[in-house]
Amino acid sequence: MAALDRITDAHERAQVLAEALPYIREFAGKTVVIKYGGHAMEDPALAELFAQDVVLMHLVGINPVVVHGGGPQISELMQRLGKEPEFVDGLRVTDAETVDIVRMALVGKVNREVVAAFNQHGAFAVGLSGEDAGLLTVRTRDPRLGFVGDVERVDPAIVLRLLREDLIPVIATVGVDESGQAHNVNADTVAAAIAGALGAAKLVYLTDVLGVYEDYPDEASLISRIDVSGMERLLAEGKVGEGMIPKLRSCIDALAAGVERAHILDGRVPHALLLEFFTREGIGTMITRDADVATGTGGAA
Amino acid sequence: MAALDRITDAHERAQVLAEALPYIREFAGKTVVIKYGGHAMEDPALAELFAQDVVLMHLVGINPVVVHGGGPQISELMQRLGKEPEFVDGLRVTDAETVDIVRMALVGKVNREVVAAFNQHGAFAVGLSGEDAGLLTVRTRDPRLGFVGDVERVDPAIVLRLLREDLIPVIATVGVDESGQAHNVNADTVAAAIAGALGAAKLVYLTDVLGVYEDYPDEASLISRIDVSGMERLLAEGKVGEGMIPKLRSCIDALAAGVERAHILDGRVPHALLLEFFTREGIGTMITRDADVATGTGGAA
Amino acid sequence: MAALDRITDAHERAQVLAEALPYIREFAGKTVVIKYGGHAMEDPALAELFAQDVVLMHLVGINPVVVHGGGPQISELMQRLGKEPEFVDGLRVTDAETVDIVRMALVGKVNREVVAAFNQHGAFAVGLSGEDAGLLTVRTRDPRLGFVGDVERVDPAIVLRLLREDLIPVIATVGVDESGQAHNVNADTVAAAIAGALGAAKLVYLTDVLGVYEDYPDEASLISRIDVSGMERLLAEGKVGEGMIPKLRSCIDALAAGVERAHILDGRVPHALLLEFFTREGIGTMITRDADVATGTGGAA
Amino acid sequence: MAALDRITDAHERAQVLAEALPYIREFAGKTVVIKYGGHAMEDPALAELFAQDVVLMHLVGINPVVVHGGGPQISELMQRLGKEPEFVDGLRVTDAETVDIVRMALVGKVNREVVAAFNQHGAFAVGLSGEDAGLLTVRTRDPRLGFVGDVERVDPAIVLRLLREDLIPVIATVGVDESGQAHNVNADTVAAAIAGALGAAKLVYLTDVLGVYEDYPDEASLISRIDVSGMERLLAEGKVGEGMIPKLRSCIDALAAGVERAHILDGRVPHALLLEFFTREGIGTMITRDADVATGTGGAA
Amino acid sequence: MAALDRITDAHERAQVLAEALPYIREFAGKTVVIKYGGHAMEDPALAELFAQDVVLMHLVGINPVVVHGGGPQISELMQRLGKEPEFVDGLRVTDAETVDIVRMALVGKVNREVVAAFNQHGAFAVGLSGEDAGLLTVRTRDPRLGFVGDVERVDPAIVLRLLREDLIPVIATVGVDESGQAHNVNADTVAAAIAGALGAAKLVYLTDVLGVYEDYPDEASLISRIDVSGMERLLAEGKVGEGMIPKLRSCIDALAAGVERAHILDGRVPHALLLEFFTREGIGTMITRDADVATGTGGAA
Amino acid sequence: MAALDRITDAHERAQVLAEALPYIREFAGKTVVIKYGGHAMEDPALAELFAQDVVLMHLVGINPVVVHGGGPQISELMQRLGKEPEFVDGLRVTDAETVDIVRMALVGKVNREVVAAFNQHGAFAVGLSGEDAGLLTVRTRDPRLGFVGDVERVDPAIVLRLLREDLIPVIATVGVDESGQAHNVNADTVAAAIAGALGAAKLVYLTDVLGVYEDYPDEASLISRIDVSGMERLLAEGKVGEGMIPKLRSCIDALAAGVERAHILDGRVPHALLLEFFTREGIGTMITRDADVATGTGGAA
Repeated sequence: MAALDRITDAHERAQVLAEALPYIREFAGKTVVIKYGGHAMEDPALAELFAQDVVLMHLVGINPVVVHGGGPQISELMQRLGKEPEFVDGLRVTDAETVDIVRMALVGKVNREVVAAFNQHGAFAVGLSGEDAGLLTVRTRDPRLGFVGDVERVDPAIVLRLLREDLIPVIATVGVDESGQAHNVNADTVAAAIAGALGAAKLVYLTDVLGVYEDYPDEASLISRIDVSGMERLLAEGKVGEGMIPKLRSCIDALAAGVERAHILDGRVPHALLLEFFTREGIGTMITRDADVATGTGGAA
Repeated sequence: MAALDRITDAHERAQVLAEALPYIREFAGKTVVIKYGGHAMEDPALAELFAQDVVLMHLVGINPVVVHGGGPQISELMQRLGKEPEFVDGLRVTDAETVDIVRMALVGKVNREVVAAFNQHGAFAVGLSGEDAGLLTVRTRDPRLGFVGDVERVDPAIVLRLLREDLIPVIATVGVDESGQAHNVNADTVAAAIAGALGAAKLVYLTDVLGVYEDYPDEASLISRIDVSGMERLLAEGKVGEGMIPKLRSCIDALAAGVERAHILDGRVPHALLLEFFTREGIGTMITRDADVATGTGGAA
Repeated sequence: MAALDRITDAHERAQVLAEALPYIREFAGKTVVIKYGGHAMEDPALAELFAQDVVLMHLVGINPVVVHGGGPQISELMQRLGKEPEFVDGLRVTDAETVDIVRMALVGKVNREVVAAFNQHGAFAVGLSGEDAGLLTVRTRDPRLGFVGDVERVDPAIVLRLLREDLIPVIATVGVDESGQAHNVNADTVAAAIAGALGAAKLVYLTDVLGVYEDYPDEASLISRIDVSGMERLLAEGKVGEGMIPKLRSCIDALAAGVERAHILDGRVPHALLLEFFTREGIGTMITRDADVATGTGGAA
Repeated sequence: MAALDRITDAHERAQVLAEALPYIREFAGKTVVIKYGGHAMEDPALAELFAQDVVLMHLVGINPVVVHGGGPQISELMQRLGKEPEFVDGLRVTDAETVDIVRMALVGKVNREVVAAFNQHGAFAVGLSGEDAGLLTVRTRDPRLGFVGDVERVDPAIVLRLLREDLIPVIATVGVDESGQAHNVNADTVAAAIAGALGAAKLVYLTDVLGVYEDYPDEASLISRIDVSGMERLLAEGKVGEGMIPKLRSCIDALAAGVERAHILDGRVPHALLLEFFTREGIGTMITRDADVATGTGGAA
Repeated sequence: MAALDRITDAHERAQVLAEALPYIREFAGKTVVIKYGGHAMEDPALAELFAQDVVLMHLVGINPVVVHGGGPQISELMQRLGKEPEFVDGLRVTDAETVDIVRMALVGKVNREVVAAFNQHGAFAVGLSGEDAGLLTVRTRDPRLGFVGDVERVDPAIVLRLLREDLIPVIATVGVDESGQAHNVNADTVAAAIAGALGAAKLVYLTDVLGVYEDYPDEASLISRIDVSGMERLLAEGKVGEGMIPKLRSCIDALAAGVERAHILDGRVPHALLLEFFTREGIGTMITRDADVATGTGGAA
Repeated sequence: MAALDRITDAHERAQVLAEALPYIREFAGKTVVIKYGGHAMEDPALAELFAQDVVLMHLVGINPVVVHGGGPQISELMQRLGKEPEFVDGLRVTDAETVDIVRMALVGKVNREVVAAFNQHGAFAVGLSGEDAGLLTVRTRDPRLGFVGDVERVDPAIVLRLLREDLIPVIATVGVDESGQAHNVNADTVAAAIAGALGAAKLVYLTDVLGVYEDYPDEASLISRIDVSGMERLLAEGKVGEGMIPKLRSCIDALAAGVERAHILDGRVPHALLLEFFTREGIGTMITRDADVATGTGGAA
């Protein structure tokens, strides 16, 4: 009886694998930039599932590139070091000492943990900072904020080299200005800029919401698919939650720069990436270029 | 309610995919030779599942090489052409006209159908005959049998070239002797010889039985795992079904030539390859070299 | 005395080789598509000379690609299988069973024999069908004819890969439609389409006539060289033999697609290819683009 | 007058460059592992000169690999975080929280600063941790010390990849054990192990002493050149300063593993690397294998 | 005391090396064509310094290409062979016998000596003549002058191949016309044509004057930097010494063909190339394209 | 009538080409070193045929390497320069001035003429001297002879590079000693040393005799084939003409160094190379290793 169960179960599992075939085929060889953050990064169980998902994507032929910030980790380290985080218009005031703390928190802690989680499954990941090999050049946004940078230029050469060597780049969002001074940069923007520079097929944001709502914050109004014009309309109508605005702006920029699809996923859902990439249903909100008619390319598309 | 079901189902499926991770990781980059035949080849529904399985293996980074014969298809074509198949000691008497029919049946029909089934999923497969680019050199076994060949030499260069170009070679088992004369060759033996020449990680036989039995034909005595010594003992004790003997001899030869594992699978089971390669349970009988202690490398291993 | 003869003879032969130098130099590294058929394919002695010629061309640095059909072989197999060939407007009515027979005759018999003849001289040739690796996509011409296809698209990637590996591709003209269904396709058209897709330097038809006549069927009016405009005029004036029309249309298409020269050769002449490629006189009819003034590039040009 | 001075000066400088020619020639294409630390790392002016020297070595064709620890920086960060550094037999007791701090100090701060200093001169350097891509596997030394590791295995693949891409790897000495747990590792030992794994031509320690003394601590007894036997004798006679012992042991290990020369340099001297690599005099102490007779290969050799 | 001197001296030398860093960085990977001639070629001591300079440039990552003529050596060999050199408008009358002498003097003597001087420092240089592998095609200038050629076409393939193999091409300026007849060609013109064909970063003439003068021949009026318009003006005003005119015309042609900078250096100055390439002061006259504002890229720029 | 002749003639020529097939096949990809000299070099008509033969060999896939000296040309230039050639034991006394003349004659004249003859047929050949890129290192034979060298070491890297780029290296036999001093070297010895260093399949000497005689100088006793033991016997018995001895010694050395066959051909015969390489009869004397039984590999073998 148990044996029968076992076999039935195995057969069902084989069938699930077989059903993933068209999606695996579709994404083989494509580059996908994933902005990692929120609960998916803070909850150790979710973080482990995230690592599994990314390694699986890598093994079935996708080229994932992971970009992360780490606001809470920066704040926590500041507080432990007796320095009170200060914000102006939602942006962290970043003096020289804070830049040091940003680097320690992002490069020395968060990045290490992400790389370590991936490498539990093999020698797959290499940590990068935007400072490495000229990856991320920024300009100071506003002297009053200190060393907070806006993306000026992405040189994706080092990322392409690592992808060519079949490695997973994990990028902490510290940038340097022309003088070599390190800056803190918004990770959402960096993810979009890197996706654009790489000509990625997809840009994925792991967030703490279900996706984008037609009628914020009514969860029943979750939008499965929307194009750039629709998104611009939503933004113009003020129907988008405050925190989502910069992500959506970044999505629009990335699509304009040639990225094919952008996704807002709920990182709180276990295996959110696998659900989006390898099942018919997909999850969250997909944003397409205007020209894209509903040709349904993969996942929830 | 249905939505919940849908989501639950999707989550379960994501989990199944995630559970395949260690197996995908283990076999990435390895070459696997699959002897295809029996019901799995004759039943169109099973044939389609087989194609899905092989393409999926290919996409997750395994290098599958498919070897097939086609006895029934040869006999059928002979009969349609008014020529009665004749056998001596189970071997088909093969005169010049029969060689022509063998080529038409194997290269012109079976091979085409296998390639076509794979290429439904993309431009993955290329058909080969043992005659192409010096792949398979044979010597005549016995003049009384006509053009029936024994494997003399395998030159795997063309197979390696196709694998290097990320293609799936599908090989019909026609060989040529030194004079260039085509011969019919036993597909089980060819599969083992090619696996040995390629240094394959696995050699898999798709058959019409559950596997090898301790106590033939008692299905309850199915052996999950056995090493070469054990297999030699079984063979010596005459406990193996007649039809299985040449396959098992070929397995032993392939293991001696450096292949890591040989498998007798039941091709009548849907997705037999996925079950063996990507689930914990595995199926059928695995034959290992004597030196291999039970280190449990993948699948049912 | 005999010794003197021998030496004189040897010297003359050395001189013949030396005189081939400018032609060998001219064609080195160029791709040449040869449509093989007619007597040159049916007569075993001519077939062996053809194999020698192609292998020699290959060895002196030309990249030959051989394309063949096999109408008589298809009809013969049909008849042996008790199926009467049926034609509408000269096109074979091709039901599902006939497609199977086409594949057996072309891929399983003719293609095998051509590959075997080449490989008598070394491991040079690999058989391909238009079904392999997406080489030949067709659309159904007319439902009443069944599975008869017109060329929709050529993906020359697999041919280029084989050429890169220094192999001679031998292509049987079976194509598949978008749904994966195999079709019979006219080999003359396929040869031209492949020559165009490869950007071949020459497209050569081996036929059973001397070439194109100014005044069909007056052999004295054989045309050595004609450009596309001249050919269009001949066709418009109805001066071309029925069977030659599709070949000439294919030539014109290939020249429009970038092929430099097209040739109608008499395959009944021993070593027809060597005569055309490596001697001053050349044979048959050469068709050039209109822009080509008589700059006399090699062979009979 | 000033013009004459200017020209004379320029000519002298041209001559100095010309005199570096034989040394540049000698080291072209060779890999050199530099253990960076001490004053050369802590003093910003020396750090800038160090960066210039390494970039210059890189530009004239040497492959430098920089390895660093950062004990003082770890202690400082611990203290800022209210955690008192504790040592047993000179080794830092490293609990889980301390490992985190080690990573933040080494990977997030020191490594960043070294990479940034190099990249002031171009996009040359990429920061690595021993955790990246399986570079550094360790085993726990002693449970009482916590996560302090001994080098178990070096996989230099990622370093070789970066060198192949003409980049300068800068390695922070954090390692992982088989379970994936990060450990603090002694940087002197890591440098030697990496030099051995890379088959480096030279291993260079930048220290805060002149070199090795015959008669410690008598500076007049500085040894310019010594072989392994001589060094073993010095160690046996207890004539070596406490802090130097592990460095010298590492040198001996590296020479046994195939490194050609090991050097103890005084990192307090401006341009210490250029002096050693590109001038006749050289500085510090060079340690050679026993077999090496004084063939004078480069620098002070 | 002497020891102190020695160390001070070494430190100064290290500093000189360090100061070359920005120039080495700037020219890394760039191709520089050097027209070699005059005293720098005739004086053995200067010739040895020239060899050192070029090898050093090569080792720090520059791709030098050396072009030379050898008028005096041709005249000398002619006279030794009892043949009186004859000139028309400053051009050597070159009959068939003289062409032979030109080849012996340039290819058989001068070229050999330059190659030998370089290869004293390693296996770096390969001698070429413009006749090799189609490098230099010329047309006869004037039948009365005999075999004196003007550059018709440069095929830089063989030079690029040698650079790719990390070798220094040393080119004697003998060219061939379409019929294969060797001609004597002006080396200044050839250097410019090769620089243009290679897309060189710099074209350098080693001459026997300080550079170009505003007020010829007043040495105090030496021009450090001038653009093409300025140079055209100077030429129009007739302010340029007779012998300099063809060099300057060649510079202007090379700049028009894409070369970034042209230099007239004084080859009588020891290490003239190092002074120009690796010191702040630079020497001689630099000619820039009009569009180039004074962005000061390297050397005296 | 004439037309018939023409066609018959063309067919015969096609047949001659076809008969060369097995020889072309046999030598494809093999390296052949040809010592060029004697009448074949001095007679312009033979020189042109030699160029045709070598270019043809190159085009059909053989890698020819041509080595030449030029004793008569050296003596002639010496005499024109008023310097009397002086010989001791048949070796030219070579003072510093003579070395210069040797270089001018060999590199500046003979080498140029050979390269030019080849390049009449395309951009195939590059001239080299043994001085280029460390190709030929020698030691002084006897101070009394001056700069006459014996081969000390061959570094075939530059030759292999040129072959890899599909070029024909033409080598003038000037070598350098360790100090960089140029020396005159015997071209027969150099050819053998280079053939050995390249692992050539054949070493061919073009001479002014029919080959080696059993009974010198009886032409009827010409030996077609002999192995090393036989040759040693001939030499021991003093049956070999004086001038042939060093050539035969060089052949024996080359065979010992791994060359497969050595040939003494009569360069006075038009197309001697084609006769030997591409006709059944072959010409001259072939010398084989002792182990080689008469397996008849190509040409006169």
